Amino acid sequence: MKTYKIYCAGSFIETDTPHQVINPYTREVFARTWLAGPEELEQAITSGKQAEKAMKALPSHKRHQILMEISEGIRYRRRDLAISLARQSGKPLKFALGEIDRAVQGFLIAAEESKRLPREYLSIDWTPKGEDMEGLVRPFPVGLIAGISPFNFPMNLAVHKIAPALASGNPIILKPARSTPLSVLELAEIIDQTDLPAGALSVLPMDREAGNQMVTDQRIRMLSFTGSPSVGWKMKQQAGKKKVALELGGNAGVVVSSSADIEDAVNKCIVGGFAYSGQVCIHAQRIYVQEEVFEEFTNRFIEKAKKLRKGDPLNDDTDISVLIDQHEANRVEQWVNEAVEQGARILTGGQKTGGYYEPTVLTGTKPEMKVCSLEIFGPVVTLEPFGNFSQAVDKVNNSNYGLQAGVFTNNLQEVNMAYEELEVGGVMINHVPTFRVDHMPYGGVKDSGFGREGIKYSIREMMEPKLLIKNKDF
Amino acid sequence: MKTYKIYCAGSFIETDTPHQVINPYTREVFARTWLAGPEELEQAITSGKQAEKAMKALPSHKRHQILMEISEGIRYRRRDLAISLARQSGKPLKFALGEIDRAVQGFLIAAEESKRLPREYLSIDWTPKGEDMEGLVRPFPVGLIAGISPFNFPMNLAVHKIAPALASGNPIILKPARSTPLSVLELAEIIDQTDLPAGALSVLPMDREAGNQMVTDQRIRMLSFTGSPSVGWKMKQQAGKKKVALELGGNAGVVVSSSADIEDAVNKCIVGGFAYSGQVCIHAQRIYVQEEVFEEFTNRFIEKAKKLRKGDPLNDDTDISVLIDQHEANRVEQWVNEAVEQGARILTGGQKTGGYYEPTVLTGTKPEMKVCSLEIFGPVVTLEPFGNFSQAVDKVNNSNYGLQAGVFTNNLQEVNMAYEELEVGGVMINHVPTFRVDHMPYGGVKDSGFGREGIKYSIREMMEPKLLIKNKDF
Amino acid sequence: MKTYKIYCAGSFIETDTPHQVINPYTREVFARTWLAGPEELEQAITSGKQAEKAMKALPSHKRHQILMEISEGIRYRRRDLAISLARQSGKPLKFALGEIDRAVQGFLIAAEESKRLPREYLSIDWTPKGEDMEGLVRPFPVGLIAGISPFNFPMNLAVHKIAPALASGNPIILKPARSTPLSVLELAEIIDQTDLPAGALSVLPMDREAGNQMVTDQRIRMLSFTGSPSVGWKMKQQAGKKKVALELGGNAGVVVSSSADIEDAVNKCIVGGFAYSGQVCIHAQRIYVQEEVFEEFTNRFIEKAKKLRKGDPLNDDTDISVLIDQHEANRVEQWVNEAVEQGARILTGGQKTGGYYEPTVLTGTKPEMKVCSLEIFGPVVTLEPFGNFSQAVDKVNNSNYGLQAGVFTNNLQEVNMAYEELEVGGVMINHVPTFRVDHMPYGGVKDSGFGREGIKYSIREMMEPKLLIKNKDF
Amino acid sequence: MKTYKIYCAGSFIETDTPHQVINPYTREVFARTWLAGPEELEQAITSGKQAEKAMKALPSHKRHQILMEISEGIRYRRRDLAISLARQSGKPLKFALGEIDRAVQGFLIAAEESKRLPREYLSIDWTPKGEDMEGLVRPFPVGLIAGISPFNFPMNLAVHKIAPALASGNPIILKPARSTPLSVLELAEIIDQTDLPAGALSVLPMDREAGNQMVTDQRIRMLSFTGSPSVGWKMKQQAGKKKVALELGGNAGVVVSSSADIEDAVNKCIVGGFAYSGQVCIHAQRIYVQEEVFEEFTNRFIEKAKKLRKGDPLNDDTDISVLIDQHEANRVEQWVNEAVEQGARILTGGQKTGGYYEPTVLTGTKPEMKVCSLEIFGPVVTLEPFGNFSQAVDKVNNSNYGLQAGVFTNNLQEVNMAYEELEVGGVMINHVPTFRVDHMPYGGVKDSGFGREGIKYSIREMMEPKLLIKNKDF
Repeated sequence: MKTYKIYCAGSFIETDTPHQVINPYTREVFARTWLAGPEELEQAITSGKQAEKAMKALPSHKRHQILMEISEGIRYRRRDLAISLARQSGKPLKFALGEIDRAVQGFLIAAEESKRLPREYLSIDWTPKGEDMEGLVRPFPVGLIAGISPFNFPMNLAVHKIAPALASGNPIILKPARSTPLSVLELAEIIDQTDLPAGALSVLPMDREAGNQMVTDQRIRMLSFTGSPSVGWKMKQQAGKKKVALELGGNAGVVVSSSADIEDAVNKCIVGGFAYSGQVCIHAQRIYVQEEVFEEFTNRFIEKAKKLRKGDPLNDDTDISVLIDQHEANRVEQWVNEAVEQGARILTGGQKTGGYYEPTVLTGTKPEMKVCSLEIFGPVVTLEPFGNFSQAVDKVNNSNYGLQAGVFTNNLQEVNMAYEELEVGGVMINHVPTFRVDHMPYGGVKDSGFGREGIKYSIREMMEPKLLIKNKDF
Repeated sequence: MKTYKIYCAGSFIETDTPHQVINPYTREVFARTWLAGPEELEQAITSGKQAEKAMKALPSHKRHQILMEISEGIRYRRRDLAISLARQSGKPLKFALGEIDRAVQGFLIAAEESKRLPREYLSIDWTPKGEDMEGLVRPFPVGLIAGISPFNFPMNLAVHKIAPALASGNPIILKPARSTPLSVLELAEIIDQTDLPAGALSVLPMDREAGNQMVTDQRIRMLSFTGSPSVGWKMKQQAGKKKVALELGGNAGVVVSSSADIEDAVNKCIVGGFAYSGQVCIHAQRIYVQEEVFEEFTNRFIEKAKKLRKGDPLNDDTDISVLIDQHEANRVEQWVNEAVEQGARILTGGQKTGGYYEPTVLTGTKPEMKVCSLEIFGPVVTLEPFGNFSQAVDKVNNSNYGLQAGVFTNNLQEVNMAYEELEVGGVMINHVPTFRVDHMPYGGVKDSGFGREGIKYSIREMMEPKLLIKNKDF
Repeated sequence: MKTYKIYCAGSFIETDTPHQVINPYTREVFARTWLAGPEELEQAITSGKQAEKAMKALPSHKRHQILMEISEGIRYRRRDLAISLARQSGKPLKFALGEIDRAVQGFLIAAEESKRLPREYLSIDWTPKGEDMEGLVRPFPVGLIAGISPFNFPMNLAVHKIAPALASGNPIILKPARSTPLSVLELAEIIDQTDLPAGALSVLPMDREAGNQMVTDQRIRMLSFTGSPSVGWKMKQQAGKKKVALELGGNAGVVVSSSADIEDAVNKCIVGGFAYSGQVCIHAQRIYVQEEVFEEFTNRFIEKAKKLRKGDPLNDDTDISVLIDQHEANRVEQWVNEAVEQGARILTGGQKTGGYYEPTVLTGTKPEMKVCSLEIFGPVVTLEPFGNFSQAVDKVNNSNYGLQAGVFTNNLQEVNMAYEELEVGGVMINHVPTFRVDHMPYGGVKDSGFGREGIKYSIREMMEPKLLIKNKDF
Repeated sequence: MKTYKIYCAGSFIETDTPHQVINPYTREVFARTWLAGPEELEQAITSGKQAEKAMKALPSHKRHQILMEISEGIRYRRRDLAISLARQSGKPLKFALGEIDRAVQGFLIAAEESKRLPREYLSIDWTPKGEDMEGLVRPFPVGLIAGISPFNFPMNLAVHKIAPALASGNPIILKPARSTPLSVLELAEIIDQTDLPAGALSVLPMDREAGNQMVTDQRIRMLSFTGSPSVGWKMKQQAGKKKVALELGGNAGVVVSSSADIEDAVNKCIVGGFAYSGQVCIHAQRIYVQEEVFEEFTNRFIEKAKKLRKGDPLNDDTDISVLIDQHEANRVEQWVNEAVEQGARILTGGQKTGGYYEPTVLTGTKPEMKVCSLEIFGPVVTLEPFGNFSQAVDKVNNSNYGLQAGVFTNNLQEVNMAYEELEVGGVMINHVPTFRVDHMPYGGVKDSGFGREGIKYSIREMMEPKLLIKNKDF
């Protein structure tokens, strides 16, 4: 069985705590790694702090070179990385390949942005007091960063921590999810081959004690977390003086106006609703369709949902596979059943087979049902009709969350209203909320998050501007 | 009779060439001023060159203060300035007041932008060669500027030369149109009260010789011209090493889609088509209406065109008055008659009374008729139907000009197509091409111009970036 | 005796808790106001939440107009406001006038910046997935803000909360210091005359219970605090999901290189060291002078420190007056005495007379003494020699704080080293750390703060970017 | 003998006019190519115009990919390209390799910038008139471009036309110098392998008739010329309505202050003065050294100048070789001799051997001598002392040219004065005027040029902003 040493302070090591990695489709242990405890974390922090100076001193051509080498390294190992990813996470191979491609992009963007850090050159002479003075603002790296990434994008959501950290000249300790730690360790192998200053990166699956300690340790200057809302908001409280970025979940809404291209809307909603069994922060969970086209949309949508191919994630043509573990499959089943008991109707799906839960479409739901109000994180979509566009906006906004929303329309007024009124971080016109490219600002409002990611935006968060004012004349 | 001395090198002077100013409505001489000849131009150039240093040295709080005082000075004299403007130009008072308000805005924007000149702070270390170096780019004033402004916006188009020139730290010589020189001379009185360095502004109505000389003189570093295409493009050729900005004319098109709010479109097209008798660079000359709504649009448009109140520009409720002179009225009449001979039909208007030409709507025109292909600069509009949107875009593009275009639609696809395909400097959605606010980038493509105006954009044109590279470490 | 009603939800009201305002120089109560309790806070929050919509909807010309009217209103009442400020705070009149002038500037800048909110227009097509799509990012107001301002700049540090809040379209509740609440209430009178939507501003001196409640209330979306580090960092922990900006204190360092203009350095250090008795966050507390010029600097500095005119803050020529209260004077005395016991020498000053503490210069100090390591917030300066420039940088950095630093030098290498190495938010070349203009980014690193202020920068913090992605072609 | 077909409208072709390429060191014909005449130019223009649409339509990921492939293609053929370049131009191999590396960079930067075209998203509601409206500005390709590049950087100065043209979505016709046409033809081979739309690039060495025609043809929308001032300024006059960018020459000055690191200054001045025998637009021609260090600088400079290794450009260790042709060598000799006759002294050099002219240092020159006032374009440097820094600035400014200047100093006041007062496009602190990295803004003032190059800046020049204004609310 393959073993993966963890990457601590620039070395691949083993610890006293072995950790098994399970293939959720076969339910077999297929790899072994180790968990870091407080001792290894301490090493990682110490070496991270020591690396701050060398990281800060890297000229931009050097940062660029390192990040380009990583991007190319990932591209070179593309298929292997995708297979490993699929095996850990149960993510169908075609989506796993897409995720690896995004990691390639992520480091490419980081390489480019590392040369374009936001600088300002300011007039200071707006008052007589500042006459003959001028100012510069250059961002400096904030210092050692801790990143925490979830299971559902084992590679790409770690890339969204590591790439901007390195681009901004910061060391980073990355804690991957325990169920899917291998992709980032494979990434660490690639990074280890570059000229990155020693100790600037650690990738540590952690035991609980180390995990907690990392959140509170004051030597760490920033915490970037992607995961569940409850955990995230608590971390903000415990983080002390450090900066915090939270990318949490949601129950994203989609609005389909009667002016839209229905075929296009259906196709995209199928992907947004069922890709990776809905285990996606911006999963298209709640779809609102204008009455005039509700029946048409619904029929087509159900038809396509039924055609999704179930199977082994390692097959090239699998569309949908098992959930990450049995516990999750049970939870999804329970939420759907509860909804049905409260009056919802199942249009398709609703069956669980082991860890697999069918693509499921509900209608007749009420906003307070769990399938509507909480993050389902499963292959479940609610379909509801609406009358006028303004009502649809209200329905989407009737949520504690606000990550992204999708709006299918060809009506300019509706575009404007959607952008003005939807309480979310991003509005996608003629696309699902699930749309994301890696250089766009990404993040939620309300309970869905704090701050913005997206390589360029993370880089800004990971830097501290320093002002220089000087006399320009004598 | 009131006399207006001209403003030469910081003094109000008389010359050997008196000049009469005529009220085009009454056809009476109502004021006297003087024309500058080569001698006065030489004085203005000499003092302008001397003022370059003092202008460059003004701290931004001082530039701001001067420009704010001008803005407030204009506001304070608002009504008097509007009456004077209306009297020179025949522009109805309500539009004259609007023009003065825009002048207030123009200097306000210039005041604000004078503190926000575009500066850059650059990483130089993108290659090993530039390691440990960094760069700054600050814009420096280009030097003495010549501005030439036309009769149709006697105040505001001069403001678009003077305000950015002062904001960018440049002296300027402004040559107003001979028919409407008084507004800028009144503005000079206001500016003369401020702390502007002596000799930094001259306002000189000129004889032909001085005018030509100003174009070719190499001490002048930039020429900013608003006027007719034929004159403008010739100046570009004669300008030698200096920079040139040309704001020329056009035969702006409007597209009204069946998805539009027709009432709104009609109302705006009435203003765009007939305000100041169409003597506007971005006059809505050619209106294309989708077949389904052509009749409705046409009926409403004609009805409103007929209701426009004709009269003395000094009356508060006059909508439309005489053209700038008899020659122009004759020319407009001739072009319309020629179109009719070639098959066009007059839906309303078509009559000339002295210098007044009725609001006129033509249909059945052909693209090669003068009323379509040239700039009519009169109260004449052509109305033609179109089938699909793409054809309307082609019709608008079938022109040597490309200043602005208006598109009334509520269809997102049409918005996108209009923006991608229309060959113009600006596309106005649900507005006429005549729309302009003073801080937006303004200017044409094809034969309509060269470069962009709009206070912030003019300021950039009037400055020369200078790079500083220095070592940042040792 | 003059009474000042507090400004709650758009009305001037009294409460059950009267509050006396004392002139620290005469020690007399000279005015009365009231403290808000939980009930008034609830009203302010309720009306603030209701005003969110109206504030968001203000077009920029309206925001600009309101803010300009406030700026002009302050300018109009300049001298009265300064006298009131001086009377509450003991701040000598000439500095009080300067503070009012800065408030005029603050609202002017806010007016200008309200028209220039940071927007982005993004290419989305960096990958095939985003082909034919484009993105917009517009900032939206974050929602109701709570501002807490300290006693030492009773007007201007409140302006740094209120002006950016209004400019960014947010309602705000401002809690001034209890000892100096009147200036902001006077400001509220000015603001009350404008068209600001009802209930968008409350100015509430508060009792402890209301104060605590404001920090934790989740309807408030952002907390902007200026005050002491211990209070500030605790608030960050209690703030829940809201954004937090902290502007805390420091023990700012100054470095005087032998290449500097010593006379200039002395003059500026006198102001930076003793203005308002050092009760300034960026008070020049620790001055390090290169050995070659240490004696010369010290002699001149002491000479000038001795000449500072003590007296009633309301006298035009008073340079220095009493501290804010007796408790503070005692504390300063105690810290100095403790330093002397531990080996420091007093070069001038060291005497307390009632609430007045003399301008005091110490040498022979050690970094761990309170006068060095903590924020003295009194008219006390330490003067110490250094050998080479790099050592001086280390001395300044040997602190838990990092707000601003001043460096007097004419040596380019030293400028570079200072900017690269000093651990502060801002480095002032040939100026004291006390330098601040209101549009520059301002804020500290280490224990000195979290985030940046300065009108434009605060506005950014007070807004939430929302992304719109749309197809650009069809 | 190797033959190089020319690249016309996407095909490698021969014409009726063969053209021989000479190795200036051996004086032998070593390759053959062809000259395009009016007929081939017509083909190139026609296909260029046709390619405008396809170029405009390329999504940014596609532009990025094409440009990255070109960059990598150049890197792959690095040594071969450098040898070919050295053979045509007589440029020593080490400099030729550096030039190829810059070409790699140029396309890399262009790839990156093609994704970051400058876009604006504007508030329009600064006045009531613009309420509820917003604006976008996207740059559109200007259309077919003509580039003319000189002999001295056969590859890199062509890259500065081609790379930004492609990055901005424009077709381009490139006319290389007749003496060094091969490098760009080799580049065309690389580009031909990519997915660039057919006919978007032509590389045509031209006969005189075609060359003239290209300047005046109105289908070409922009002319970007690098070459001699007299030719350039005349083109501006003949260019009609098209945009013009001129990168011309100069007689760049260097100032060495007594505060500078003399050794560093000498080393850099040797490179700036003699690299490629001074056949560089930003050749360090006039060196002014402060009196206190004049002797020291002069001695070291002469010593190093004497050590430069003369030889075959194809040898790895050759520092200096022949001029581009005999005519040039004769001209340089004549200018130096004329200077000596008028009183200048030769400190080293002054001898011609065939096409080789020795590294030559003159002193005792007068500003009006050709070696001072004109662009020498040869390995000749004048060394003169100065008293105070302000005088040195005047000496540098005493020129018709203003490209770049170098200033060696460690004095902050001198840095400020240099930046404020030097009349040039770029000031290099502690570096020679010869310093250039390919992403910096580059270009001259006075007679040295018109506009700015440097990939990002050229891209801006090659695009036309188009404004979209739309209502944002209904």
